Parts: sequence; structure tokens; C-alpha cells
Amino acid sequence: MYKVFGDMLSGNCYKIKLLMEFLGLDHEWVHVDILAGTTRTAEFLRMNPNARIPVLELPDGNFLWESNAILNYLAQDSRFLPQGRYQRAQVLQWQFFEQYSHEPYIAIARYIRKYLGLPADREAEYHARQPGGHKALALMEAHLADNDFFVDAGPTVADISLYAYTHVAPEGGFELSGYPNIRAWLSRIEQLPGYVTMSVENG
Amino acid sequence: MYKVFGDMLSGNCYKIKLLMEFLGLDHEWVHVDILAGTTRTAEFLRMNPNARIPVLELPDGNFLWESNAILNYLAQDSRFLPQGRYQRAQVLQWQFFEQYSHEPYIAIARYIRKYLGLPADREAEYHARQPGGHKALALMEAHLADNDFFVDAGPTVADISLYAYTHVAPEGGFELSGYPNIRAWLSRIEQLPGYVTMSVENG
Repeated sequence: MYKVFGDMLSGNCYKIKLLMEFLGLDHEWVHVDILAGTTRTAEFLRMNPNARIPVLELPDGNFLWESNAILNYLAQDSRFLPQGRYQRAQVLQWQFFEQYSHEPYIAIARYIRKYLGLPADREAEYHARQPGGHKALALMEAHLADNDFFVDAGPTVADISLYAYTHVAPEGGFELSGYPNIRAWLSRIEQLPGYVTMSVENG
Repeated sequence: MYKVFGDMLSGNCYKIKLLMEFLGLDHEWVHVDILAGTTRTAEFLRMNPNARIPVLELPDGNFLWESNAILNYLAQDSRFLPQGRYQRAQVLQWQFFEQYSHEPYIAIARYIRKYLGLPADREAEYHARQPGGHKALALMEAHLADNDFFVDAGPTVADISLYAYTHVAPEGGFELSGYPNIRAWLSRIEQLPGYVTMSVENG
């Protein structure tokens, strides 16, 4: 059975939970408390030397880290990963966009505000993350004007990657009222069979 | 024929050139001057709305962006992309590590110093990028103590992704003298048939 080490309030971890539920994959969820320093222990670093969640433990005892790599592993031969060479590359294109041009703004701003409570010494950084987040959202909004999902094959792991932090972007100060195409796309994801909210696992 | 829009002094673009040469893929290289604002033109944004290089134009006229997505597309069915499901996911794991935990420190510090000439108003940011870069290098150094390449299948696109900015890390202020395993791995890449240096295309 798969084992997932993560925190459901982390969008990067929630990605894995969402796909697991969409695919009906049996798994054990092991809650990791990042604020308590669990990811810095020797035991955790043996699983992921980069000290980050999520980590996937495979049934054979091997480990895999980086949320989007885990999604691609789990989605193989499923409807969430298209078979065509160009479409598969487009899935990766949007996932690398997510990690480089979306997550560092939206997820970090949300972390500073939701996890840390927007302390005074992080306020300047919080505000500095806003323009980059809106730039990513504007690009998504434009793409979704002509597309129901990010890759035309239908919902893929690229949508799951981008959904994770976009649907909680308001928690990072990014209001979504000006992005109607994004809001419609969020609804399409939420209507997929197996959908679970972010609060499903943490106690 | 493939067309690549890029700047060989950008590590993200050089990745594509390296793989093209390793695989002997016929292609046209179109130089893009990022400092001149070329990536902000309407013509460029039609190819990549995220206004970044590299962009790959396929023979059928379709476009693909994000360097690591392009590498995976081009490497399909070649020796630079293993067939095994876990190994393929490990390739992605290291590529996402590169874009999230390596490039934002090492490539940005190099950009500030080499492209911009370390102007006074970017000096604080330049110095702030140093610890993260060394953290990424230390993780790589430890991994390479027991491994010749990042994924045990041999040289893959994960090595190409990490090679691009690591081999010019000193241009960003990251001396590699304290990383003997990394230096040995750089040499292994440089001995692969077809290897070209970063200076091969720009005029």
C-alpha cells in the first residue's frame, strides 16, 4: 500500500490526496507537522534530503518526493495523464509553470498569512509576493477563456497541480472575484467524482 | 525541423541545446535578446504567454515552453529518459528540485551578477540568494557521493537540467572547490559524446 507523508493544509500535499481519491488508490496518510520541525529529523531526511513534504513511500519501500513528480508517477496509465507525446509535455509545462511562476507567490503569501499569522517581520515579503501571484492568475484566466482544462485532453494532473493553491489563493490575499474563468474551472474540478476538500485528513 | 527560441547564455536555454546535440537532433536556433524586451512583444507572447525563454516550435507549428518540459518531450524514447516508471518519476523529482530549490538561487544570483553587473540596488538580493544555492549544492554533493548520475539509469535529462546552472555557478558567486563530487559529475557530463559549451551559438 502507498504511504503519504504530508499535511493536508499544504497545497503540495493536498495535490496527492486529490489524485489518490480521484483514482480510488488505497493509501495510508501520515500527518507531518512542518512547524514542529519534523521534516528536519534524521529519519525524515532519509526519505527526502530536501526536508519537504509531501513524500510518497511506495509498496516496495522506495521513496519519491516533489509533489508534481509524485502526481506523474501515480497517474501513469490513468485518465489524468494523456497518452500523446505533445499533451504529456504540455502537462509538464503547466506543472513547471505552477512550481516556478505560481507557487512561490501564491503559496508563500498564503503560508505567511495563514500559517505564520502575517507577522510584522514578514509583511514586506507578503506584499512583495502579490504582483507575481496576480500575474500567474491573469495568465491562467486568459488560457481558460478558450479551454475547459489546462491541457485539452480533459482534466489532468496539470489541473490538480494548479487547483491546489489556486482554490485557496484568497487565504494568501488574492481575491478571485476578478477571475471568472478561473472560478468556473475551479467548479469543474470540484464536480469530478471523488473530489475531497482540503480539510478531509487533518484532525 | 525543430526551432528553438533562446539565448545560449541562459542555462534554461542551454539545456535544450545540450540535449539536441547529445541526440543529434536537427534544429534551427533563433537568438532572443531578453534584455532588449523581445519576450514582451505580442509576437513572442503568442508563443509563450509567460514571456520566458526557451520556447520550442515543433515541426507542426505547435509551441512548448518550460525548459524541463521541453527536455522530456525531446528525450522520449531516447537513452536520456529511462523507461521504468519509478526512474522516470525520479527524473522529474530532480527536475522539479532544480526549478524550485536550485535555479531560483543559483541562476538568479548569476543573472544579477553576470547580466546586470551586480548593481547596488540588487546587491542585498544577490547575497540573500547565496545560502539557498549552497543548500542545493550540498544536497547534490551528498547524492553524488554514492551515484555517478542523479538517476541510476545513467545520464538522463535530470543531469542536463542540473548541469546547466551548476557548471556556471561560480559566475553567481558559488565556488565549487568545496564540492568534489559535483566537480567529478560535471566532468562526466562534459565527456559525453556531442557535448557543447555554452558559448557555441551566441555570435
